[in-house]
Amino acid sequence: MPGIGPRTAQRLALYLLRQPEERIHAFANALVNARKQVGQCQKCFHLSAEAECEICKNPARNKDLLCVVADSRDLLALERTREYKGVYHVLGGLISPMDGIGPELLQVSTLVKRVDNDETKEVILALTPSVEGDTTSLYLARLLRPFTKVSRIAYGLPVGSELEYADEVTLTRALEGRRAMD
Amino acid sequence: MPGIGPRTAQRLALYLLRQPEERIHAFANALVNARKQVGQCQKCFHLSAEAECEICKNPARNKDLLCVVADSRDLLALERTREYKGVYHVLGGLISPMDGIGPELLQVSTLVKRVDNDETKEVILALTPSVEGDTTSLYLARLLRPFTKVSRIAYGLPVGSELEYADEVTLTRALEGRRAMD
Repeated sequence: MPGIGPRTAQRLALYLLRQPEERIHAFANALVNARKQVGQCQKCFHLSAEAECEICKNPARNKDLLCVVADSRDLLALERTREYKGVYHVLGGLISPMDGIGPELLQVSTLVKRVDNDETKEVILALTPSVEGDTTSLYLARLLRPFTKVSRIAYGLPVGSELEYADEVTLTRALEGRRAMD
Repeated sequence: MPGIGPRTAQRLALYLLRQPEERIHAFANALVNARKQVGQCQKCFHLSAEAECEICKNPARNKDLLCVVADSRDLLALERTREYKGVYHVLGGLISPMDGIGPELLQVSTLVKRVDNDETKEVILALTPSVEGDTTSLYLARLLRPFTKVSRIAYGLPVGSELEYADEVTLTRALEGRRAMD
């Protein structure tokens, strides 16, 4: 499991073995039920116990604005900002030829179909600034541009950081991505 | 001195006391000479041993593009990118009403005069994303807009970072600062 090394694993295992038998049963059942009940939203592919997730169902969300993320963790990070009022589409990963992950393994065709059907006004690509993120952004932009306006989130200096300590690539991106002030 | 706590200070002091007397003389002289010789470029206020610094003197640098930074450390960080080919203007700090630092204590009037005289085509504000940096950027943009195009570097996700671990304010800025892909 991510973040659990051999020592933590041993500590957790010994803790579980010390618990009363009925607690372990309850825990095991909770795991099985969670796995059984939590599926994917059939619209945006975010984790959801129902066919349509809370965000897609919410009439207050702006359906004209669609934000594309790699996975549900990124969606939750954007939700924490409480600033974004549109809906999402969860790709389920990033295109990575090195790892044999092509667009057909991701929710790409469902994205194009959805943008076309819903007449989405703008798609915001919110993918990590990495080789895979950039590849996926460029691929999706080319695919979606016939249907809608495509934008990507800004890459540059994180808020609260010092220019002096920023790495060269980030500074280069921040210079390239400069915006007119008006 | 920055980064030197009491224990490091003691170690350095004891090291210096163990050195031969002539080495200490040479070191002291080097300090006095450096302080005496290194002044400011009269054009951009970067550190310089001469009236005009190496960057301002360089005919290969694009004089139409002027990047405004808070201090020489930020200038050196941007130089490390090897991407920026314009010239600089070093403010000598940021506007901070809390600390009693107003524009009159910074190289602001020299900046406006320079942009006006040199008919600079674009000024890029490269200030840290903080309250002081934002205040200074807005102030300078208002001041310079009658003379030239004003832009600011991008604030958003640093390259190589994970969306999931970005703080809310950075993500909000990255969303607000999104750019059309075309």
